[in-house]
Amino acid sequence: MSEIKIGVITASDRASKGIYEDISGVAIQDTMKEYLTSEFEILYRCIPDEQEQIEATMKELCDKEKCCLVVTTGGTGPALRDVTPEATENVCEKMMPGFGELMRQVSLQYVPTAILSRQTAGIRGNSLIINLPGKPKSIRECLDAVFPAVPYCIDLIEGPYLEVNESVIKAFRPKAK
Amino acid sequence: MSEIKIGVITASDRASKGIYEDISGVAIQDTMKEYLTSEFEILYRCIPDEQEQIEATMKELCDKEKCCLVVTTGGTGPALRDVTPEATENVCEKMMPGFGELMRQVSLQYVPTAILSRQTAGIRGNSLIINLPGKPKSIRECLDAVFPAVPYCIDLIEGPYLEVNESVIKAFRPKAK
Amino acid sequence: MSEIKIGVITASDRASKGIYEDISGVAIQDTMKEYLTSEFEILYRCIPDEQEQIEATMKELCDKEKCCLVVTTGGTGPALRDVTPEATENVCEKMMPGFGELMRQVSLQYVPTAILSRQTAGIRGNSLIINLPGKPKSIRECLDAVFPAVPYCIDLIEGPYLEVNESVIKAFRPKAK
Repeated sequence: MSEIKIGVITASDRASKGIYEDISGVAIQDTMKEYLTSEFEILYRCIPDEQEQIEATMKELCDKEKCCLVVTTGGTGPALRDVTPEATENVCEKMMPGFGELMRQVSLQYVPTAILSRQTAGIRGNSLIINLPGKPKSIRECLDAVFPAVPYCIDLIEGPYLEVNESVIKAFRPKAK
Repeated sequence: MSEIKIGVITASDRASKGIYEDISGVAIQDTMKEYLTSEFEILYRCIPDEQEQIEATMKELCDKEKCCLVVTTGGTGPALRDVTPEATENVCEKMMPGFGELMRQVSLQYVPTAILSRQTAGIRGNSLIINLPGKPKSIRECLDAVFPAVPYCIDLIEGPYLEVNESVIKAFRPKAK
Repeated sequence: MSEIKIGVITASDRASKGIYEDISGVAIQDTMKEYLTSEFEILYRCIPDEQEQIEATMKELCDKEKCCLVVTTGGTGPALRDVTPEATENVCEKMMPGFGELMRQVSLQYVPTAILSRQTAGIRGNSLIINLPGKPKSIRECLDAVFPAVPYCIDLIEGPYLEVNESVIKAFRPKAK
């Protein structure tokens, strides 16, 4: 059993019914494998856009499975069934507005509809939860922008020490004050 | 009767008493006429900076009048009587932080006091509500920045299909996943 | 007795116990002295990262001492003991999201971990409360970015008229509408 666990939640009515393949969840897993040199285990969940179920899944991955990082895809738009940010806010003790701000700013370089994404991030216990966009291309753009701060964030919430492949991504750890 | 309805709310103690002309509300209406080639009807309300009245007006325009878009001007600053963002938050089921972030960023290119604007946006049922600044010049700068995402947002919340004058503004509609 | 009072709160378990010197609180005071030509008095508090105590101190400085500006340092990260933004939100009637957005954006030019800062700002009565980062260098970068909007903000909430040293910092006061 690996010590580092990363949760990946795809919130999608259609993917969870098998109507289409969940390429977004796969894209996140592939990116994590590229980024991290530490050994880690992925816990993957593909569920419908039901707020209660998303919250329950987040709690399971954070509290029971002890994932230091839980990444979601899907459900961050303005549509009726888009409830991932609300689920995130409900389960987190601390919100991290800087993640959503930076991700929207990065996505704005590609599409003006980036402002429609309500993605956020927050802390639950010793876990960091980050909402990502739905499309693989945007997922990568957003992860490339925010991931340099993720290992240090996990240090600060007393999670495991993540080591990254510096030729792919830099992990920034400021020296202690 | 036109199928597309757009609400314009001016929140201003002085304009609502007729102490000065509401040039901001007029500026929004003029901009909408420039942007849209679809036929539409404007529902205009000029009311004092009373949170309850602003909320009631938003509800009326969204729920009864079925406006797909409700745009406000005024009441987004730090002063005691500035309560438009609070009213917006109270009537919306979903907040859209990307609108406020982008509008402040755009206004920051002109004035450092742009950070004092607390403008936001959100979804109530099938309506998008957007707070704009108080001054006509800033209104136009902000609308030019966020409007490219508005028609697609209204598609996603199952509102009418807005067609724009592409020589004035672009409407960005990404292809379905 | 000076008419203009500025509160400085250092939230730090270690500094409040005297384990290390509070260079951050000193940095804020020094910056204020550089910025302002108006006579003013600093009210300085160094307290542990206890949310209730931070809230009580903010209330005392705003309500009893009538500080027009209360600046905090420390406690804005993701760690368990970082509760300054929550305290700020609890005591403020109005939140000012533009301050946090701009400060994170400025800090992002220096370090990718800037997104981990949850700093915010808000209004309590006639007082503006601003969270700053923990490190003197970041404090100055953030203050240089947001301070040009501070005197006008304090005008709008009916505080005293702050005069600044224009060779160090500009205070922007737009003309009335």
